[in-house]
Amino acid sequence: MERYDIAIIGTGPAGLSAAITAKIRNKKILLLGKKELSMKVEKAHTIKNYLGLPEVAGEELSNSYKKHLDIMDIAITEHQVTAVYAMGDYFGIQAANDMYEADAVILATGVIMGKPYPGETELLGRGVSYCATCDAPLYKGKTVAVVGFGKNEEEEADFMAEVAETVYYFPMYKEEVEVSEKIQVVKDQPMEILGTAQVEQLKTKNGCYDVDGVFILRESVSPGQLVPGLHVEENHVVVNRQMETSIEGCFACGDIVGKPYQYIKSAGEGNIAALSAVSYVDKKRREGNK
Amino acid sequence: MERYDIAIIGTGPAGLSAAITAKIRNKKILLLGKKELSMKVEKAHTIKNYLGLPEVAGEELSNSYKKHLDIMDIAITEHQVTAVYAMGDYFGIQAANDMYEADAVILATGVIMGKPYPGETELLGRGVSYCATCDAPLYKGKTVAVVGFGKNEEEEADFMAEVAETVYYFPMYKEEVEVSEKIQVVKDQPMEILGTAQVEQLKTKNGCYDVDGVFILRESVSPGQLVPGLHVEENHVVVNRQMETSIEGCFACGDIVGKPYQYIKSAGEGNIAALSAVSYVDKKRREGNK
Repeated sequence: MERYDIAIIGTGPAGLSAAITAKIRNKKILLLGKKELSMKVEKAHTIKNYLGLPEVAGEELSNSYKKHLDIMDIAITEHQVTAVYAMGDYFGIQAANDMYEADAVILATGVIMGKPYPGETELLGRGVSYCATCDAPLYKGKTVAVVGFGKNEEEEADFMAEVAETVYYFPMYKEEVEVSEKIQVVKDQPMEILGTAQVEQLKTKNGCYDVDGVFILRESVSPGQLVPGLHVEENHVVVNRQMETSIEGCFACGDIVGKPYQYIKSAGEGNIAALSAVSYVDKKRREGNK
Repeated sequence: MERYDIAIIGTGPAGLSAAITAKIRNKKILLLGKKELSMKVEKAHTIKNYLGLPEVAGEELSNSYKKHLDIMDIAITEHQVTAVYAMGDYFGIQAANDMYEADAVILATGVIMGKPYPGETELLGRGVSYCATCDAPLYKGKTVAVVGFGKNEEEEADFMAEVAETVYYFPMYKEEVEVSEKIQVVKDQPMEILGTAQVEQLKTKNGCYDVDGVFILRESVSPGQLVPGLHVEENHVVVNRQMETSIEGCFACGDIVGKPYQYIKSAGEGNIAALSAVSYVDKKRREGNK
């Protein structure tokens, strides 16, 4: 399998900043994320404190980022990463049905806004899933609820509808919903996931739905679930000033490592994480050659 | 005497980023530095990794900074700060013959380079550079001299060797030199940088080298002289991830707190320092009102 020097997960300001610096340092990088980059940046009205780009609209900033990637010839691999495994000497990155390998990993997946639903953590892997592409086949002929936190999740819901018998779709955003006719769109607020051994029901503000599975599609997965064994405190990855995490060769930057949630802070940290990862990879290489 | 909320010392990327964020948060700020901002930024040839401003020339970046200050109506007080005294409840800032007072201080004075070589200042940005990561791509297939003042600069030299055709490395330290085989290690003392429009030669004690560029990678002079009592390690101010120094109410950001010496890293840290200082000032105010 092809081995990358550095895999960067996330295409917000932190991940992009890490990618451009690692590329300048001639590393073979894999940038995993969304081609439309961060929805949070894109939808921002005006950003006043991104030094050098005064009064910049979110969309304009996002376009500047895209231009920067183009000029540097950096491609985005569009896959939802579901898990990162520290294999000792390298990292295995599970993305949908593909597996990638890299010597170092930079986590820049952002922060999950809001708390998990009651029952979510308890029933994860027992009916609760974060990835339709991965787990849909388990629900052939069954009934599932899909909670989508962004319009881009509609594709995942449509895919579910091809497999499952019944799909309830709960849009957690304001844009118009455009999904397959097979899907029952429910404009209600999920409150709790119920079940003992397995998911049985999704309780909402105004009702209750009998389901076999609940797919919760947020912009990002919680960092502790993404990287088993990673030291996490209050939903943030613990790092030092070099952006090193508790796992050697694994770095993190941006909102995932804590407040302030600011674009320029994330970009700055991405730069540090990249240079730390470059040092790590170079050192590993030198020792390997001895 | 007029009391400022936050005094920011330094007008490089860290200080400016701190200033715009503190101003957005409605703090009464004093920004001390140079109206022409940072010479290091101004003279940089091309900066490739300032996310959102691809391939930006130093002068262009500097102008963007000036525009940002103008739009936000932030003035620079042009005074050389000679000392900062922690008075317990506030800070006294000595600048030439003037004295200022502020509740919080942000140090962003950068690294003080040692005594420059003859020709160094004149040819800065025209073959003389302080950052291999930034400027190496300009020397693809060319000949460069790298003057390293610490063993940790060997990584930078190795990176140069990946790009340039010929690299002469001048180690200015006593430790064993371990660099790429492609590098010619020269144990000689650089004396002068020669050239008219561009760098042409590096003159040493025992010879003369035809080069297209000279990279001077120095350590800094102690910032402990600026702020008596400040905890400093190896010429850098010690800070935590909130950019708090060992003195309450005193924050630091940018090159002064350590490597990597990168503009976007400095800007990111300036943002964090400003928000930490804002929290500190607000808390002080609340407690004072009790």
